[in-house]
Amino acid sequence: MAQKKLGSQTVSFQNPPSILSTASIVGPKEGEGPLKDYFDLIIQDDSWGEDSWEKCESKLQIEAVRMAISSAKIVESQIDYLLAGDLLNQIIASSFSARQLQMPFLGLYGACSTMTESLSIGSMLIDGGYADKIVCATSSHFSTAERQYRFPLEHGNQRPLTSQWTVTGAGASVLSSSGGPPYITHVTTGKVIDPGIKDANNMGAAMAPAASDVIVQHFKDTGFKPTDYDLIITGDLASLGKEIAEDLIAQEGYNVSSVYSDCGIEIFDNEKQDTHAGGSGCGCSAVVFNGYIFKQLKQKKLNKVLLISTGALLSPTSTQQGESIPGIAHAVTISNKLD
Amino acid sequence: MAQKKLGSQTVSFQNPPSILSTASIVGPKEGEGPLKDYFDLIIQDDSWGEDSWEKCESKLQIEAVRMAISSAKIVESQIDYLLAGDLLNQIIASSFSARQLQMPFLGLYGACSTMTESLSIGSMLIDGGYADKIVCATSSHFSTAERQYRFPLEHGNQRPLTSQWTVTGAGASVLSSSGGPPYITHVTTGKVIDPGIKDANNMGAAMAPAASDVIVQHFKDTGFKPTDYDLIITGDLASLGKEIAEDLIAQEGYNVSSVYSDCGIEIFDNEKQDTHAGGSGCGCSAVVFNGYIFKQLKQKKLNKVLLISTGALLSPTSTQQGESIPGIAHAVTISNKLD
Repeated sequence: MAQKKLGSQTVSFQNPPSILSTASIVGPKEGEGPLKDYFDLIIQDDSWGEDSWEKCESKLQIEAVRMAISSAKIVESQIDYLLAGDLLNQIIASSFSARQLQMPFLGLYGACSTMTESLSIGSMLIDGGYADKIVCATSSHFSTAERQYRFPLEHGNQRPLTSQWTVTGAGASVLSSSGGPPYITHVTTGKVIDPGIKDANNMGAAMAPAASDVIVQHFKDTGFKPTDYDLIITGDLASLGKEIAEDLIAQEGYNVSSVYSDCGIEIFDNEKQDTHAGGSGCGCSAVVFNGYIFKQLKQKKLNKVLLISTGALLSPTSTQQGESIPGIAHAVTISNKLD
Repeated sequence: MAQKKLGSQTVSFQNPPSILSTASIVGPKEGEGPLKDYFDLIIQDDSWGEDSWEKCESKLQIEAVRMAISSAKIVESQIDYLLAGDLLNQIIASSFSARQLQMPFLGLYGACSTMTESLSIGSMLIDGGYADKIVCATSSHFSTAERQYRFPLEHGNQRPLTSQWTVTGAGASVLSSSGGPPYITHVTTGKVIDPGIKDANNMGAAMAPAASDVIVQHFKDTGFKPTDYDLIITGDLASLGKEIAEDLIAQEGYNVSSVYSDCGIEIFDNEKQDTHAGGSGCGCSAVVFNGYIFKQLKQKKLNKVLLISTGALLSPTSTQQGESIPGIAHAVTISNKLD
């Protein structure tokens, strides 16, 4: 096993999986944001004809998976595994999507880190020879998340400026043992880090140390420098968390400022769209990666990207019981070249 | 990849991972059941000194992981990945356990199928060369599950005879790239199957078709016959679900009756302990496998076992929205011999 394990938390691939295709579907608000031209589909109302937001979220995921498969010019029966997760209790968006899709299903929960968790496991299963084609998918929905994690929307409560806006959207990637670039070449799996923050409206700060930790570990394990990347992009730290992460990374001797961004910052125009600190949710890094970043890689506008989806591992129960909010993040290198 | 993929849903291993050690911790009621002599630790009260049942469940998982690691005569820093999940919203039992354990963490959600989901992914990551040592762990707790899925315990509601009793307990397995038997030799990953049952007090029937489907697929993919196994054991179908699964498997031409049991039946004496249809919960197959079955394998009383943890993918929200209960199951072959 020694040759694949580069360091304490990173593996590199001998036959790096290709990302054959991706798909991204977003809600109306995301469809008015700065990345609107990159999404594959923008739905016009946030229930998409379903009788609950939860059912809409499941439909977002199902349709994103189907669009990605169709765009890869393959059929559903060729998929060996569906790796999916979401924010809902018992990940029902994903389970009900898997019921429809009828693929061998491995359910994941990493809160908003699920996109890179699924890409990490999916890459290992393909490079390891256990699968030829895998779909990785995640979703979130503003209205399902608000009523589950915070307050009924009808309550109309005020949102503090540190709060983030859960992205309505789903993203899916088809990984394959054969195909052209971009490839997933490295995976760094994160540990749970808890800076002791108890404010569920300040999740960027709660997740920043986990993001910083896995990014620094990635540099140590691989020997890569920040400037080896065209883009280093975290999942949903948003404006406040991004600043903290950048500081923490600098304290460890790595200056990422020239290449560093955050999906939660890119997806909304916070001033015009009143989204406060920025976007969040499993869907945030999912649609920014599967929509915007993948297309930039295909067009060679970006050639090497480090994507780090970031998760806050709280539940309303843990918050009510006085627990602080642990964070986690997983980093995935996506590159047009094989090193 | 062709050599490892045996059929549409099964993979076999070239360097099958050893199960180095296991640990099981159960609550007082489980500690009075028929398998009491096989558990590594029986706690004397169901909060184990913690100020909430949720914190107790996390402690069960942490201590089971530590006992398994200690029993393998290794140290925590040697663990490459912790794969864990549970039934709680946002799998907080596992996330808070991972916060304490400080190992690279991949969170899973497969409801009560999580034990074999974690063993499946863990085996692929070890055989694939991405890890030398992995811990797989799951837990459940009667009191956390009741208040989350059903009613406050103080409500004292009656339980129908089809209902099951969520096991209080946690189990952990240490997988290793080297070591002696038993080995995990095959893994069959299940699809989500929904027979249309809407009664959350009849989960055995809801999960039975998924169990039957993955067992039959396992036979088709591997060419194994039921009698190749000393024991074929489902997770928590309990008395009603087991009968249905056995019938469905027979309809496909496989007679498993001489070797087939269910962890939910083995763990309690249903008549004496008033547990109705039997045990359930992620902890059910976790403690029966990591407690009873593993010891039987080590003592060569059993030599080849097919373990099929079974999950009901419902949430209170999906039930309230009129959804039926989809099931899933994953099968893992554990054998003292390499075929």
